[in-house]
Amino acid sequence: MAKSSGKGTEISAYGEFGLIEHLTKDFPLRNRDTKKGIGDDAAVISPRNKQMVVTTDLLLEGVHFDLAYTPLKHLGYKAVVVNLSDVYAMNAVPRQITVSVGVSSRFRVEHLEELYEGIRLACDHYGVDLVGGDTSASYSGMVISVTALGRASREELVYRDGARENDVICVTGDLGGAYMGLQVLKRENKIFQQDPKFQPDLSKYEYIVGRQLKPEARRDIIQLLKEKGVKPSSMIDISDGLSSDLLHLCHRSGTGCRIYQDKVPIDAETAAAAEEMKIEPLIAALSGGEDYELLFTVSPKDMDKLASRPQITPVGFMTPAEKGRLLVTSSGSETEITAQGWNAFGRMKDE
Amino acid sequence: MAKSSGKGTEISAYGEFGLIEHLTKDFPLRNRDTKKGIGDDAAVISPRNKQMVVTTDLLLEGVHFDLAYTPLKHLGYKAVVVNLSDVYAMNAVPRQITVSVGVSSRFRVEHLEELYEGIRLACDHYGVDLVGGDTSASYSGMVISVTALGRASREELVYRDGARENDVICVTGDLGGAYMGLQVLKRENKIFQQDPKFQPDLSKYEYIVGRQLKPEARRDIIQLLKEKGVKPSSMIDISDGLSSDLLHLCHRSGTGCRIYQDKVPIDAETAAAAEEMKIEPLIAALSGGEDYELLFTVSPKDMDKLASRPQITPVGFMTPAEKGRLLVTSSGSETEITAQGWNAFGRMKDE
Repeated sequence: MAKSSGKGTEISAYGEFGLIEHLTKDFPLRNRDTKKGIGDDAAVISPRNKQMVVTTDLLLEGVHFDLAYTPLKHLGYKAVVVNLSDVYAMNAVPRQITVSVGVSSRFRVEHLEELYEGIRLACDHYGVDLVGGDTSASYSGMVISVTALGRASREELVYRDGARENDVICVTGDLGGAYMGLQVLKRENKIFQQDPKFQPDLSKYEYIVGRQLKPEARRDIIQLLKEKGVKPSSMIDISDGLSSDLLHLCHRSGTGCRIYQDKVPIDAETAAAAEEMKIEPLIAALSGGEDYELLFTVSPKDMDKLASRPQITPVGFMTPAEKGRLLVTSSGSETEITAQGWNAFGRMKDE
Repeated sequence: MAKSSGKGTEISAYGEFGLIEHLTKDFPLRNRDTKKGIGDDAAVISPRNKQMVVTTDLLLEGVHFDLAYTPLKHLGYKAVVVNLSDVYAMNAVPRQITVSVGVSSRFRVEHLEELYEGIRLACDHYGVDLVGGDTSASYSGMVISVTALGRASREELVYRDGARENDVICVTGDLGGAYMGLQVLKRENKIFQQDPKFQPDLSKYEYIVGRQLKPEARRDIIQLLKEKGVKPSSMIDISDGLSSDLLHLCHRSGTGCRIYQDKVPIDAETAAAAEEMKIEPLIAALSGGEDYELLFTVSPKDMDKLASRPQITPVGFMTPAEKGRLLVTSSGSETEITAQGWNAFGRMKDE
């Protein structure tokens, strides 16, 4: 149907409907609650007695991703994962996604195939169904819009506003890695732009570059909490940085907080890269963002059930609002937590 | 909070979270099944025993809309309506939407306020809740992504694949107006570009320009069908043009069709503008698109219940697939229906 050349297949060779059929032909529907996927005016979902959660994200080339150092397959995977992360942060299970993609004429069908291969891998890995969306021309680079739908019983849902005084603040995994990975990718790309023969050696930074390019959503934590019978009092995923996202929990829950610098989990590779690039590792962890770890609070009585789980680190506790929102440094001094997280508009000004 | 100047308020004055709070502060949640709107990782919906439908659309500046002749308030309204139209085309009732917007630095907060005013008007008019989405910087003009969610019982849902031989093909309203309105707007804008003192007089074209800039979704038809106890055997909304969308019904249902040129409803203003611009009115109706009317099929026995409804026009009937998909012209000759509808990729090539 589509003509190929050495430079790839022009998207216009397919037409709108042919293209989306081509790109989505290997996507099975695996969830029984997905009654109708792509191919009608809308998808149909049967949630039975469950509640449905819905979240959406718009990713724009040059703002949210840079194709100079982001492989399209990784981009497709990540575009899905960041939305699933929001679903897990509700203590819900993701089941369906829709994906709309806009591409300018510099892209070829093969580029879209790579992108959709990443989307398919994410669907496979997390057991979600692609049920809608389309592809479209764009005058302005690549645009990706993902909506994720998930389900949970009313009792399971965890909001941002349920934290109470003395609740323990926990984070999963380690923080700051995705941000440091981004700094490494930017640095190597800059050198490459000046010297196209330059071959970046990223082996020293494998972990943090992976954190940036191929993040995972913490399904395992949601499953663990369920197994242990622990329901967090509040939860959010760390997309903007620990500071900013913790302030969201405090703001919505009407609490203050105290977290301890020494408790904030930072991987050795993150710390080494930060020091190499003259960035304070703690700043990367607090303000870097894009780690897609979970930040949640639990009642102190539940902490025993989560003890000796290396993937969960208590970093502090909630306080009355009037006590402020404080970081206790290694030297024991207290400093106010401020939101310096990643901001799509701030970034527009800075860069 | 935000500094204003004669040229408006810079978006960066708000920051990401402040801005979306500002823009969405006048959006009430009116549906009991909306359990949580904006402000958490995801919105929460309680569909009870209903099925949920979900549909999404990505609208890109320069491809799907041109701000040279599209007021932002109308654009916001239309971006919602085109998604609600898809929900109605499932015979479902829209209840929630999410809206993500990307804007480049040439836009000001006041521009976004206008856009969201249109979104709010559509939410008011159709009784839907804005439950999610965000605003973001863009390097590439304006990007709008809307996802609409609706509900229906399993018995109510109407798909594209249920049409049977002898079912009557009906269209609502009239066709081709939105396309002719677009041609008028383009023509006037071209003159304006050459002579900025030119004041376009659109009064002669009020109906068709309105069809282009401020379409409505046919909620009234869905309600009427329910009142009359008529369930269409198949349904689609006419977004790409009657030809293309009818071929979708035939393709999914495995039928052929015969429609009659003389039956295709075309408004007098549409016909006059088409003749003025040397476009065959029938072509505008068949291939113009963006009318957001409904195209549906009903069993012949149900046609009595819909008789003397001026907003519903029978245009033909379904046939066995082997009889082909045919348009019977005024002179009685038969011609094959081909899809020449609006195509975001075709357009990229043509213009």
